[in-house]
Amino acid sequence: MEGFDMDGIIEAKIKAEMLNEVMKIIGAIVEEVKIGISPEGIVIRAVDPAHVAMVDINLTSKAFNEFNATSGNIGISVSKIQEILKLADSNSVIGIKHNESKNRLIISVGNIQRNMGLLDITSMNDPKIPKVNLPAKIEIKTEELMQGIRASESITDHITLIANPEYFELLADGEMDSVSLKLTKDMIGSGNLNVKEEVRSDFSLDYLASFLKATSTGSLSIGLGINHPIQINFDIDKEETQKDELGKSPKIETVGRVLYLLAPRIEND
Amino acid sequence: MEGFDMDGIIEAKIKAEMLNEVMKIIGAIVEEVKIGISPEGIVIRAVDPAHVAMVDINLTSKAFNEFNATSGNIGISVSKIQEILKLADSNSVIGIKHNESKNRLIISVGNIQRNMGLLDITSMNDPKIPKVNLPAKIEIKTEELMQGIRASESITDHITLIANPEYFELLADGEMDSVSLKLTKDMIGSGNLNVKEEVRSDFSLDYLASFLKATSTGSLSIGLGINHPIQINFDIDKEETQKDELGKSPKIETVGRVLYLLAPRIEND
Amino acid sequence: MEGFDMDGIIEAKIKAEMLNEVMKIIGAIVEEVKIGISPEGIVIRAVDPAHVAMVDINLTSKAFNEFNATSGNIGISVSKIQEILKLADSNSVIGIKHNESKNRLIISVGNIQRNMGLLDITSMNDPKIPKVNLPAKIEIKTEELMQGIRASESITDHITLIANPEYFELLADGEMDSVSLKLTKDMIGSGNLNVKEEVRSDFSLDYLASFLKATSTGSLSIGLGINHPIQINFDIDKEETQKDELGKSPKIETVGRVLYLLAPRIEND
Repeated sequence: MEGFDMDGIIEAKIKAEMLNEVMKIIGAIVEEVKIGISPEGIVIRAVDPAHVAMVDINLTSKAFNEFNATSGNIGISVSKIQEILKLADSNSVIGIKHNESKNRLIISVGNIQRNMGLLDITSMNDPKIPKVNLPAKIEIKTEELMQGIRASESITDHITLIANPEYFELLADGEMDSVSLKLTKDMIGSGNLNVKEEVRSDFSLDYLASFLKATSTGSLSIGLGINHPIQINFDIDKEETQKDELGKSPKIETVGRVLYLLAPRIEND
Repeated sequence: MEGFDMDGIIEAKIKAEMLNEVMKIIGAIVEEVKIGISPEGIVIRAVDPAHVAMVDINLTSKAFNEFNATSGNIGISVSKIQEILKLADSNSVIGIKHNESKNRLIISVGNIQRNMGLLDITSMNDPKIPKVNLPAKIEIKTEELMQGIRASESITDHITLIANPEYFELLADGEMDSVSLKLTKDMIGSGNLNVKEEVRSDFSLDYLASFLKATSTGSLSIGLGINHPIQINFDIDKEETQKDELGKSPKIETVGRVLYLLAPRIEND
Repeated sequence: MEGFDMDGIIEAKIKAEMLNEVMKIIGAIVEEVKIGISPEGIVIRAVDPAHVAMVDINLTSKAFNEFNATSGNIGISVSKIQEILKLADSNSVIGIKHNESKNRLIISVGNIQRNMGLLDITSMNDPKIPKVNLPAKIEIKTEELMQGIRASESITDHITLIANPEYFELLADGEMDSVSLKLTKDMIGSGNLNVKEEVRSDFSLDYLASFLKATSTGSLSIGLGINHPIQINFDIDKEETQKDELGKSPKIETVGRVLYLLAPRIEND
C-alpha cells in the first residue's frame, strides 16, 4: 500500500461530527471500551455495567476521510476522546494514529496532539449479541419518541411500549398523572407499522433517554415483543460534498450502522 | 351548543406562548391554584403563602384558539403544566380538556397527552382583591423598571419607589453603595406621570423581581401611594394572523388583563 | 478647562465593551485594586495574592469617549463594576464620575446610577514591575494558545513552553496522557519567531488559563526565557466609527496596552 508505513494498526482521519456521535452513543453505555479494527472499518460493542443495555456499532472505512488499518483491538477511554472533541468544530477533521511501541493513540485537532495511553484490553470481554426474534417492527421519527420520553420523565422511571395493528403507543403511569404518546397507523404510515398481534413490554426510562439523547439520526427502526428486549436500529450516513460538480445536490451515503438492545423491565409484584 | 359534548367544564385550545406567560406569572406567586372557569373565559386569583403579594388574571375566551366551557372551578399544579409546556414551541397549540368523572385535566401537545390529576379545591380560599385608592399613576417600560431591579439586587433586599410631579424614582440603599433609577417627566412623557403630590413606599426586591421576570409585556401601569401597596396592571394581547387578507398588518387585540398587588415593607426600627 | 467643573479627580465616559475587557483582566488577578488617574489616562497595576502573577494596564484618554481628570488614586472593587456592566450592552456608554467629598464613584448605565463606596487605598501597595530580559520573542494567535491550554486542562496543572529557532511548543505531561501544541516557523511566520537559542520554562496552567480567558485580543506577543517568567503583551485597540465619512472603513487606533507577567514554576523534586 503506497505511502502506508506506520507503527500501529490504524492511521485515519474522520470528521469531528461523526466521531462525536459515535462517542456519545458509546458513552451512554460505558466509559471504557474495546474497539475492533480491521482494514474494512471499526466495530465497537459495549454492554453497560448492569448488563441491561447493549450497543453494537459498525463504522466502515467509508465513514472516514482517510483510513489505513490492519487488524487488531485497542482499549480507549470515551471521556478522553470527548475532551479532545470539545476543542473541535463539528466540521474539523480529527486525526487518529496508533503508536504500538508506545501503546498510545495519537489524536490530533488542528495543531494540537494528544497522546492517549491505551487501556489494557485483556480484561475486556467480547459481548455476544443475543439473537432476538421480535414480531413487531415500527419505523418512527426519533424526535417524536424523544418527546414521549421527555414528557414521561417527571412522572415515573419506566414506560410501557405497545404496538398493535392500529397504533404504536408509549405509556407512562405515575401516581396521580399519566402520559401517553399514541401514533396511529395513519399518522406514521401503514408501511411503518408492521405488527400482526399486539405486543407490549416495559422499559427503564433512564436507559432509553440516555441512548436517544446521544443519537442525532432522524428516524429509528424499532423491534418489539411481549416482555422482550427492545431493539433499535439506525444507519449512520455521510454527506459527500462534491465541490467540483456544481449544481448537484449532496450525495448521502450509508457508512455505518447502530444496533441498540435494552432488556425489558419485569415487574415482580 | 352545536358540536359541544363533553364530560367536564372546559375543552379548549390555546397557544403555548399565551399559556406559558400566564403560568409564569402565577408560578411567581403560588404552586397550587384554583382556576375559575365560565363560558366567558377563565379567572385566576392567587395570594402568596406569606400574604404579601396577590395576582388576579382574567383571560377572556378570545385568548384561546378554541374555547367551550360551562361554569366551575378546578385546582391545578402550576409546575405540572410547565413541565408539559417545556415540550412545546411557543407557536404550538396546547389542548386542554376536563374529564370530570375521572377528576383529570387532559393536556395535549402534538401527539402527547398528559392526564393530570386535579387538586382538591375545598381547602383553597377565594382571595378577595382589596380596594386600594392609589393617588399616583405611572406608565413605565417594563425593561426600564427591570434594569433598576437588577441593578439593586447585589446591594440590598428592598427598594423605595418614589413618584412626584417631576419624576419617578427607584432607590436601593446598601451599606456602602446605592442605586438610583430616575425617570423625569420629560423622559417618560408627562401624560405617563400622573402625580399630584409626592408618594413613596418601600417594597421587597425579591417579590418585585420574581413578578417582573415572569412578564413579557412591553409596558406597565403602576399605582403608588404613601406606605401603600403597589398595584401593577397590564393587558394581555393576542396577535391575530389573518392569512387570507394579504398585505394587512397583524391585528392586535386585548384578550386579558393582569393585576398584581404587593404590600409595602414597613420598617419597624 | 472649559466646562470642566467637578468635585473629584475623574469624570469620563467609556464604551461598556472596553471597560468590561479591562475589568475581566484585572479580575483574573485581584478583586480590589488601586487605579492611578492622570490627565493622560489611567494606569492599573495588580499582583495576585500569591505574588505569582502581575498585570499592568495603561489606558490613554483616547480609550474613553470623554475624559476629564486631574491626578490621584482611587480604590475600587472589580466585582462591583462588573455587576453594573452586566446591565449594559457591549455598545452602551458607561459614565464614570468621582465624588471626592462623599468618597464615592458614580457609575451610570442608561438611566441607572450606582454610587459606589470607594476602598481605602492606604494599605494597597504599588507593585513594581520587575525588569526581565527575555531572549525569545514570539507572536502568536490568542485562540491558538488558548486551544493548547484547554487541551491541557484535563491532563495536568502545569505546562512547559518551549521556543527554539524552529518552533514554539506547549507541552502538558500527565500520568498516562500528554498534549502538545507545536507551531513551526512556517506556520506562524519566521518574523514571529525571534529565538536564537532554545528556551523553556514551566508555568501554572490555572494562572495562564484565567488570564487568557479574560482577553479578547486577536494576538499576543510572548517573551520567554530559561526558567524565567513569561511576559505577555498586547495592545488595546479602539474602532473609530466616523459616521459622516461614508464609504470609509473604520479607523483602528491603539489606545492602551496590557502587560502580564507570570513567574515560572520551579520543580523541587
